Amino acid sequence: MRPFFASRISPRMTTNAASGTPAPKAGTPAEIDQLVADLRQGSRRAIASAITTLEALAPTASELLKKLQPYLGHALIIGLTGPPGAGKSTLVNALIQELRRNDRSVGVIAVDPSSPVSGGAILGDRIRMTAALDDDGVFVRSLASRGYLGGLSPAAVRVIDALDAASFDIILLETVGTGQNEIDVAEVADIRIVASAPGLGDDIQAMKSGLLEIADIMVVNKGDRDGAERTLQQLKGALSIRAGQVADVPIIKTTALSGAGVPELIAAIDKLAAPILSSDATERRRKRARYLIARAAADLVAERIKTGGSDLINALADEILTGEATPSEAAHKLLK
Amino acid sequence: MRPFFASRISPRMTTNAASGTPAPKAGTPAEIDQLVADLRQGSRRAIASAITTLEALAPTASELLKKLQPYLGHALIIGLTGPPGAGKSTLVNALIQELRRNDRSVGVIAVDPSSPVSGGAILGDRIRMTAALDDDGVFVRSLASRGYLGGLSPAAVRVIDALDAASFDIILLETVGTGQNEIDVAEVADIRIVASAPGLGDDIQAMKSGLLEIADIMVVNKGDRDGAERTLQQLKGALSIRAGQVADVPIIKTTALSGAGVPELIAAIDKLAAPILSSDATERRRKRARYLIARAAADLVAERIKTGGSDLINALADEILTGEATPSEAAHKLLK
Repeated sequence: MRPFFASRISPRMTTNAASGTPAPKAGTPAEIDQLVADLRQGSRRAIASAITTLEALAPTASELLKKLQPYLGHALIIGLTGPPGAGKSTLVNALIQELRRNDRSVGVIAVDPSSPVSGGAILGDRIRMTAALDDDGVFVRSLASRGYLGGLSPAAVRVIDALDAASFDIILLETVGTGQNEIDVAEVADIRIVASAPGLGDDIQAMKSGLLEIADIMVVNKGDRDGAERTLQQLKGALSIRAGQVADVPIIKTTALSGAGVPELIAAIDKLAAPILSSDATERRRKRARYLIARAAADLVAERIKTGGSDLINALADEILTGEATPSEAAHKLLK
Repeated sequence: MRPFFASRISPRMTTNAASGTPAPKAGTPAEIDQLVADLRQGSRRAIASAITTLEALAPTASELLKKLQPYLGHALIIGLTGPPGAGKSTLVNALIQELRRNDRSVGVIAVDPSSPVSGGAILGDRIRMTAALDDDGVFVRSLASRGYLGGLSPAAVRVIDALDAASFDIILLETVGTGQNEIDVAEVADIRIVASAPGLGDDIQAMKSGLLEIADIMVVNKGDRDGAERTLQQLKGALSIRAGQVADVPIIKTTALSGAGVPELIAAIDKLAAPILSSDATERRRKRARYLIARAAADLVAERIKTGGSDLINALADEILTGEATPSEAAHKLLK
């Protein structure tokens, strides 16, 4: 069985590259207390060690998580997604720089939808992205997902907690707009930004129009390119008839390479953030936890039905084959 | 609420473009019998009318589906997917031509992951693709999905039945490799082909490596381009360490525009098809129906948990927050 996720080292911990992630240090209650104290002080090594412990679901993970509880609820969690070619990594880089200019700290979790198989290229990319950073106000972590079909690892949410407890103001969850990861990030983030760019072609337009459904803020990146204005107008048109809701999704044009438009993007984020940050932080975290349970339960139910083959399930399947019931009707009957 | 799917007209029915899909004709039992008879004769109009009836879940859909039952199980269902830029439409076109050369009939269902919002461009593309066809052995239908996050419409499976009853040898389900559609097509098809191409870039590599997990056959399309051989070797390497299984996935290089490699692709399909076509057709269809129930039930369970907020769910959510339980453990407790 493939593990839930393959942990990746932080680019800041390159000395550990050969041996993988550092072994969790904290074991005894006193050691865990020390780890929490160091993490609260912003120690990079403590943050990395805490993340490793939480990711690994090590025996001490539960103890550590309990001790982090009093310090949670500070951070704003922003999901950033979009199709391949939208320039998401560059945009993350630009966001980091602009947020730092305003003295706000940033934790980045880059969720990589690739299989463990081919993760190398992406990690390389991530390191390039953050090579310029030498700043305690920034922490970047790449996490593999549970694979294309599997979605975000439950551990990713624990990593959010570690960064939150370490007092980062903003936590950026970045993922390429595809598969279950996308759905998960949409549920886990407080604010969802969907990035696009001119000239991505038809197939990608289709993908993007799907992503419209989850956008709180749209970004047209590569704004200095030909066709940027046209892309912006098209998105405006598409958003104006987004199913079932009034269109008040801001669309921001950015050129991440030069930083143009990034202050406007942050202003749009802040406008949405105000009511969120003044809401009940525990309830926000509970909502995320409910989502994780819901996803796990849905997986469990689906797996039981697909493989179960009980008499009832087979009878319901036959009702679908003959048109007597729709899948939804059959599911309702089954869950009664 | 957005409807389950927005039906699209078949490119062959362009005279109905202005008024949308033709109204279902069959109402009385005698009319339905006539429709089934015409469909079995290969009448294009009858096929289109049957699909419309089945898609709309019209009152007569159930009656029609029952009368189609005796004629089902003939077709081989092939899922074709891949990232944007892999040349899937061109490959479908090439497959159609080669299959027709061997006197095999083909029904194509193109599942479009875009929202109803931007569907136009894709439908246009589809019409271009099939503009050259004037052949009763081919039928092409574009279906919108339930949106990026929603996946394949249950109606799509009914459309498979209509094409199967009309005696098409091969049913090609084509979709861009993204979102829930992808997962659904993987479950619904008998054989899954994943198409790729050289030079698609890092983000797309990541997506593709995810798609590797579901491939029965890999295709490197645009085989005449620089880097095709390198892409093929990389895929071979990636497949050789695909998690948890022996690597015997054939990799075929095609140039869909010229047709090169397409006979080899069909040979690979036929090799996999032999044991499938000799297996119990009803059981294969039942398996698809079980999947549809599983997905509907999973959606239902997830929705109840996310919105329910019962005392038990909130207690379990708190156990996750404090690290006392993993989401999977909480889900098991809840479903007990």
